[in-house]
Amino acid sequence: MRATVIHGERDIRVEEVPDPVLRYGTDAIVRVVAACVCGSDLWPYRGVQRTDSPHRIGHELVGVVEEIGTEVSGLSVGDFVIAPFYVCDSTCLNCRNGVSTSCLNGGWWGSEDGPGSSLDGGQGERVRVPLADGTLVVVPGTPSDELVPHLLTLSDVMGTGHHAAVSGGVRAGSTVAVVGDGAVGLCAVLASQRLGASRIVAMSRHEARQALARSFGATDVVPERGDEGVARLKDMFSGIGPDVVLECVGTKESMDQALRSARPGGQVGFVGVPSGGPELPVRTMFGTNVGVRGGVAPVRGYIEELLPEVLDGRLQPGRVFDLTLPLDQAAEAYAAMDERRATKVLLRP
Amino acid sequence: MRATVIHGERDIRVEEVPDPVLRYGTDAIVRVVAACVCGSDLWPYRGVQRTDSPHRIGHELVGVVEEIGTEVSGLSVGDFVIAPFYVCDSTCLNCRNGVSTSCLNGGWWGSEDGPGSSLDGGQGERVRVPLADGTLVVVPGTPSDELVPHLLTLSDVMGTGHHAAVSGGVRAGSTVAVVGDGAVGLCAVLASQRLGASRIVAMSRHEARQALARSFGATDVVPERGDEGVARLKDMFSGIGPDVVLECVGTKESMDQALRSARPGGQVGFVGVPSGGPELPVRTMFGTNVGVRGGVAPVRGYIEELLPEVLDGRLQPGRVFDLTLPLDQAAEAYAAMDERRATKVLLRP
Repeated sequence: MRATVIHGERDIRVEEVPDPVLRYGTDAIVRVVAACVCGSDLWPYRGVQRTDSPHRIGHELVGVVEEIGTEVSGLSVGDFVIAPFYVCDSTCLNCRNGVSTSCLNGGWWGSEDGPGSSLDGGQGERVRVPLADGTLVVVPGTPSDELVPHLLTLSDVMGTGHHAAVSGGVRAGSTVAVVGDGAVGLCAVLASQRLGASRIVAMSRHEARQALARSFGATDVVPERGDEGVARLKDMFSGIGPDVVLECVGTKESMDQALRSARPGGQVGFVGVPSGGPELPVRTMFGTNVGVRGGVAPVRGYIEELLPEVLDGRLQPGRVFDLTLPLDQAAEAYAAMDERRATKVLLRP
Repeated sequence: MRATVIHGERDIRVEEVPDPVLRYGTDAIVRVVAACVCGSDLWPYRGVQRTDSPHRIGHELVGVVEEIGTEVSGLSVGDFVIAPFYVCDSTCLNCRNGVSTSCLNGGWWGSEDGPGSSLDGGQGERVRVPLADGTLVVVPGTPSDELVPHLLTLSDVMGTGHHAAVSGGVRAGSTVAVVGDGAVGLCAVLASQRLGASRIVAMSRHEARQALARSFGATDVVPERGDEGVARLKDMFSGIGPDVVLECVGTKESMDQALRSARPGGQVGFVGVPSGGPELPVRTMFGTNVGVRGGVAPVRGYIEELLPEVLDGRLQPGRVFDLTLPLDQAAEAYAAMDERRATKVLLRP
């Protein structure tokens, strides 16, 4: 089959690789219907994370079950499934505590070092899914083509935006600012609206993303950043700032801006992968009582909550995809996101 | 009148100083009935915080109102009052949000730079209380002498221990570990029990404090620290750690231990004044989804909640005082706490 392999900085190739086969009784083989490029895939693409040797890449996918192992009981061949961006058993203590990203038996896509990980990623024709009963969520029936992008966001960005909002404690009436206008930031706007926030500020200076943010529920758009962005936010909320700030970037500057913008006693919900940024200023947090909570998003547990609203059309997070390419053009997909020509690219094998 | 003045490292003196007088219509003059030494007073005492010139010290007190300014409406001469360790108006946006330590008009004891601060502290015979209506809480009637230590803890340590527990999200059934066996740590144990924690581990290697922790509700005592302490805690809670860890010290080591002990998705509630420790490891927090929340405790807002239980004897946080001295022996009070001969010293003017 064909799959995407990263060879080094800005070197993405689609190559012929061995077809995946069942290795454990808990595995399933899934034919990928749609996959995508994640903002975090850009870290190795840009060389911020070093690629020592060529390896598979990708971790967001939806598809159809083609084979199941002898121990798989909750799936059938032909099921349409959503795979989260990680592998989990959905039964261990951490999974039951809602932190399936810390699954005691789970793992990750793209490296094969045990029963909880898979060499395959989403950016290919097929994947071996470990711990398939725990990892995959079945979508009832056969979803229409129009639904596919929306379903695909449940594998990562929509669940991650939702996790930012949940970690920030967004509830009915909350005032919220979202730092970051990538796909996750936009989904955080949508999630905040869904949770009943009374006012949502999107921090963005990109016209198309501002428009999407507004249609996702943003009541205000602030293009300023850094000190100016903080000052604008404070001004907009009685001089003290919004209740919650959602950090959806992961740089030193974005976290700093988030922490300084939240009102005293407020909360920062963060999901931006910290890209070598500094540590959190604990004395500032102490003085302002601004809490920080978040991390790698346990999206598996959110799929069941969000799926019905995607299926009935109330939630349309798939609108973050502004480019669709065939798998063979994966290199162009990365370039388009890297150069900010696209917010999020969908790949069709 | 006589009041405590710090002159430098390990140089505490009780001196004759001018009697306080009303300066603003919102002031009250309070005769101090009992005051105490705070763990945070030890930072300047030990020279960790530099003392450039002699100044008053102390910020925990209960007493009797002797005079009120023309704008004070909620207090009468003769009222027995509790003063929190800071000054606040109890009406601004931040106060209404439950963060009176960030009061827009408030301030601190021991420095006189506006209507929201007072040169006086608790460790003297009298204090000028700014924004008296907002700052002071009236205790009904005339409390017995036995009640005074318990009431005094509401000015800081009991409210601060409670804030740790609230910030950590302790609720019925939570599993909790408390790092720090000082007065605040012990009060955090008591607060966790009050909030319904199912299991409370006190981290302590001090026999008398272990015993007090147990009588405050600790179900377990762990003397190990650092890596060993983390391993013990993980072991005790199914290998993953407790839901909540309350950090009540403020050093690099204690915060590190707290962050590494909490289970994935858990929470650290912190109230230890960060003493030049490092910043928080955001990548660790990202990977584990352990949140961090806390800071300088808005105890003013907790007094009304805790006071009834102190008055009827259900809550006895004053048991943290293990030494009572006359004001004139303030220097010995500091030395006893510094050398850990006493957990918390009460001063009687």
